[in-house]
Amino acid sequence: MSVIDEPLRFDAEPVMPRPAKVTLVGAGPGDPELLTIKAAKALQTATLVMLDHLVGPEVLELVPASAQRIYVGKESGHHSMPQEDIIKLMINLARSGKPVLRLKGGDPYIFGRGGEEAQALAAASVPFEVIPGISAAQGAAALAGIPLTHRDHACSLVLTTGHLRGEGDKRGVDLDWGMLARPNQTVVVYMGVATLPVICRELVAHGLPADTPAATVERATHADQRTVVGTLATLPELVLLHGVKSPALIIIGGVVSLHATLGSSAVEQRLVAS
Amino acid sequence: MSVIDEPLRFDAEPVMPRPAKVTLVGAGPGDPELLTIKAAKALQTATLVMLDHLVGPEVLELVPASAQRIYVGKESGHHSMPQEDIIKLMINLARSGKPVLRLKGGDPYIFGRGGEEAQALAAASVPFEVIPGISAAQGAAALAGIPLTHRDHACSLVLTTGHLRGEGDKRGVDLDWGMLARPNQTVVVYMGVATLPVICRELVAHGLPADTPAATVERATHADQRTVVGTLATLPELVLLHGVKSPALIIIGGVVSLHATLGSSAVEQRLVAS
Repeated sequence: MSVIDEPLRFDAEPVMPRPAKVTLVGAGPGDPELLTIKAAKALQTATLVMLDHLVGPEVLELVPASAQRIYVGKESGHHSMPQEDIIKLMINLARSGKPVLRLKGGDPYIFGRGGEEAQALAAASVPFEVIPGISAAQGAAALAGIPLTHRDHACSLVLTTGHLRGEGDKRGVDLDWGMLARPNQTVVVYMGVATLPVICRELVAHGLPADTPAATVERATHADQRTVVGTLATLPELVLLHGVKSPALIIIGGVVSLHATLGSSAVEQRLVAS
Repeated sequence: MSVIDEPLRFDAEPVMPRPAKVTLVGAGPGDPELLTIKAAKALQTATLVMLDHLVGPEVLELVPASAQRIYVGKESGHHSMPQEDIIKLMINLARSGKPVLRLKGGDPYIFGRGGEEAQALAAASVPFEVIPGISAAQGAAALAGIPLTHRDHACSLVLTTGHLRGEGDKRGVDLDWGMLARPNQTVVVYMGVATLPVICRELVAHGLPADTPAATVERATHADQRTVVGTLATLPELVLLHGVKSPALIIIGGVVSLHATLGSSAVEQRLVAS
């Protein structure tokens, strides 16, 4: 073997190409019209999209047919790629020079684990950008006629998650009940349908009146968005009765009482009746 | 005067025309690319727009030149139309058959008094629609590199307002300090720059460590967005030093510490240095 044929190894640092950019894009709550203009442009020019099940099919129609699609997650009960593998894949793709559009339901920085993904990208010196999105609570509120704040009912808005944490016997809903059970605020719980009975019970145990208005909103901003309204005392039973399914939001507080007059169907009904 | 010439009066109920629709549109945080597609379409087809000072000029460029513009408020210290007059005007315009686009900074249902406006419209049987918008907190967070939630720092996000309430000697910041001073959450205060010293003092008095990271974000999502980072102990002085002006958001909690690595300028600087 001549010297010429010998591959160059170990004698120089390989020149790493500058990694491509990752764009963390908020896909919004479902209705593609609720994408931001910036997000829509990013989708229309994407060459590679990583997405999970929370992103609706209508939103994906904006992505060019030629673009590569990688599904990475996550539906409760179904197999999905672990978060660390998602992050590794994203970094490897960017390092191989492929710009990645990481599409996340709602807003990447509100319960989207976008913060963790951004941290990993920063640590790997992969350039990234975050495009915010309408969060499910905002989309649901607009259509259901439940203002998230209102001077008569709520001076603060609290967003939290209700999914189970921990393992085995310690598995439970680990929330700051004392904080959530304050008067004069709106509480929105993401991913809380499965644990709704615990949530309602704990909020009452920590001081909220049992007749505090509470609702679930299913499939926010989709054509079949459905709102079930009750109170902390009645909502768990109503949810069983009506077969409410994940993903759905729980909204708790005086603002829920406005649904009867401000909900889209309420407005339509009143106009027909008048 | 012949019978023919006499106008028909009092012998029949006047036929009121069906009122035109009012669309409460979230203008988002400033960057027109952060409007939703739905909001942009509404602006592009508007014939009459009612707006306040929180709406940026770039967003208004989408409104046809032929459309009527009515400025109704509100900048602290400046004269503006009282909320009840805004509502009356909106209803009268709709009743006169003019579709109204009511443009509000951020999201109409998050501290936009959109809930009150929707209620008044519903009570007057004026049909309305609400189009959500990216709230200032979301826009600021994306650009400043401050995720609003993050498993290591915050399992809840609290949005509240810091403006002065009450009259005379009783004028003050009337917030639920015990709730806001909980650990493991992110607190965003809208309209709180003027009362920042009180906010920081009360949060520490109610149990948050004085070294809790805290930041102000001025002119969210505008080209000149500026983030000033300190702690509950140092932020009031830093805000004076840097001449931070309203409107600006206050963000409090562990997530603020991520700004150093996730902020846009931080990413740029690291890439240049590497």
